[in-house]
Amino acid sequence: MEFRDLLLGLVLVWLAAKVAGETMERIGQTAVLGELLAGVLIGPGVLGLVHESDVLHALAELGVLILLFEVGLESDIDELLEAGLQATLVALVGVALPFAAAYAVMHWLGHPPLVAVFVGATFTATSVGITARVLADLGRLQDPAANVVLGAAVVDDVLGLIILAVVTGAAQTGGVSAGSVALLTGKALVFLVVAIVLGLRLAPVTVGWISRLRARGTLVVYSLVFAMGLAALADLIGLATIIGAFAAGLVLAKTDRRAHIEERVRPVADLFVPVFFVTVGMKVEPARLNPFGTDAQLGLALVLTGLAVASKLAAGLAVYQPGVRRWPVGVGMVPRGEVGLIFAGTGLAVGVVAADLYSALVAAVMLTTFVAPPWLKMLYRTRT
Amino acid sequence: MEFRDLLLGLVLVWLAAKVAGETMERIGQTAVLGELLAGVLIGPGVLGLVHESDVLHALAELGVLILLFEVGLESDIDELLEAGLQATLVALVGVALPFAAAYAVMHWLGHPPLVAVFVGATFTATSVGITARVLADLGRLQDPAANVVLGAAVVDDVLGLIILAVVTGAAQTGGVSAGSVALLTGKALVFLVVAIVLGLRLAPVTVGWISRLRARGTLVVYSLVFAMGLAALADLIGLATIIGAFAAGLVLAKTDRRAHIEERVRPVADLFVPVFFVTVGMKVEPARLNPFGTDAQLGLALVLTGLAVASKLAAGLAVYQPGVRRWPVGVGMVPRGEVGLIFAGTGLAVGVVAADLYSALVAAVMLTTFVAPPWLKMLYRTRT
Repeated sequence: MEFRDLLLGLVLVWLAAKVAGETMERIGQTAVLGELLAGVLIGPGVLGLVHESDVLHALAELGVLILLFEVGLESDIDELLEAGLQATLVALVGVALPFAAAYAVMHWLGHPPLVAVFVGATFTATSVGITARVLADLGRLQDPAANVVLGAAVVDDVLGLIILAVVTGAAQTGGVSAGSVALLTGKALVFLVVAIVLGLRLAPVTVGWISRLRARGTLVVYSLVFAMGLAALADLIGLATIIGAFAAGLVLAKTDRRAHIEERVRPVADLFVPVFFVTVGMKVEPARLNPFGTDAQLGLALVLTGLAVASKLAAGLAVYQPGVRRWPVGVGMVPRGEVGLIFAGTGLAVGVVAADLYSALVAAVMLTTFVAPPWLKMLYRTRT
Repeated sequence: MEFRDLLLGLVLVWLAAKVAGETMERIGQTAVLGELLAGVLIGPGVLGLVHESDVLHALAELGVLILLFEVGLESDIDELLEAGLQATLVALVGVALPFAAAYAVMHWLGHPPLVAVFVGATFTATSVGITARVLADLGRLQDPAANVVLGAAVVDDVLGLIILAVVTGAAQTGGVSAGSVALLTGKALVFLVVAIVLGLRLAPVTVGWISRLRARGTLVVYSLVFAMGLAALADLIGLATIIGAFAAGLVLAKTDRRAHIEERVRPVADLFVPVFFVTVGMKVEPARLNPFGTDAQLGLALVLTGLAVASKLAAGLAVYQPGVRRWPVGVGMVPRGEVGLIFAGTGLAVGVVAADLYSALVAAVMLTTFVAPPWLKMLYRTRT
């Protein structure tokens, strides 16, 4: 009985994703926008046809891992490193500005400092998934701006984890030690350097050895074993799993079997990735945005959305490298997606963020997420 | 935390499956035997590295669905129908003989009739997964014997469900009506005929239409939507999900995109299918078979295994068509796999089968499962 619910859920998720994605592509938008909207439609917020179960949630998490692995496979580590300083600067500005802006507004509205801190932290996040997917769909992952955005998103994820640790610590114990912040930063750096340096050394040998194996499906299985192994390792030391999967993709991109791996991972990604975006859309409750509702937070949500968009666009101005366009970088940082939801959810869980404020935060996070795909698409259409 | 456990579990399952599968292939055995043994090793019975969670269980179930879908894609419905009468005869003999043999032994050992009925029912099952996988790995799905075995397995699944309904009803209410048996049989026939006839009409049109869509990954997603939709439908009317998936494969095999679908489903199957066989292996508890243990049931398990093997081999003698080899058909029906475990588990759940008898049943079911792959491989090696 339970398994049948999963089958029906998957059938609905896939059908809705494909029909909405196809519709969006035909009207000149990106498929991912359709998948997000499909999630809103079939999710608990509107039709209530599909609810997020443990299994669906796990498949969605695997989906975003496989997406980042695929994006890593299509990226060039040398170009990413070249964009490293530039990306770090963009990430830092893109964390500081949204935090300051949201903090100031909440403070001005009379909220206590801790609440203002949580709201500020929520808008520091960047959902690399949305932007990576749009760039991949547009075939623009090799664009110089893509390297800056992807690099900045990785740095942003690390910064985000540190910020989350700091604000959660502040909410629970009233403070956080500088030592734990330094430890988290150090672990992140060591992980990335060790995983990539060691990976680049060992991967060619291992891949060559795997190519000589006889059993069917060896390449795709070992590739995903590597991606999920690094993801689990990243999680183990306190980093986001997607960073591990992205690093795995970067490493395998440097082997001579890259094309074969990409070809075999593609149908797997085709199945898993939409599950992620549909479940992100399922978290939206449009009723919360009804301006005539009792707990309407539309005004606050719109103000926060405006600030969130403007401050990340400003981060794009931190681009100094020639040949890198500022607008795609800024817009690429705009979507907060599931990362922003994690911040807001943590605030709700520790009791700092009240339920009505949480709704406003979710709405603002979602608006930033929905605004980015068409915007990026437009930017890349006007200048090809 | 929970998601990391899933990642580590998958990494372990895949690594163990691949290493053991490769080893088996190198010593002239089939990969699936390695995957089963890998499951025994890493499962709770020996090392206890991986335990079956809800998510892993769901992935395994999806795995066997995708396997049967793939087998359906590689089968020819006309040849299956040609083998129809032959397959039905084999299935009937292969249900009647094991039931009678196991019933007689249990009765002779002094067990009450209801217990003997449950044990008999357990050995009527056929795990089409094992045989289909071995034949697929050996590239023998087009063999005339393969059509008989696959057809017989489908008939057997329908018969098995009827038997399960009858014995469960007998255990719970003391009887079962002829009407409900007729209903179940009727539903099964109607489902297969409607799904396949309607599918064969509609699939070419739909596939042609899907080929004109623009979004990425459309073919693989719609193929699996069809497979899982039919699987859910089969489950809804009381049939096994794998029958629905197999029917979906048969239908799509008749479209002109068959090769494209197969190519794209393959990496997905490479990932999911081993999860199924490893989790089947994980259900084995070798300690139960320790002849020096306190609740040793090794003797009974071995007797039941012998009967189970001999009676299904005898079913192979029901082959009358020229050109169809009797031995591969008989051996192909031997593995009871997860279907036999469902019977034994139901008997345990309704309180008819005691814990020590259950262990013996599981052991015997597993022995039949492990004996079939090397045997089939041998049969196909001696006559190519």
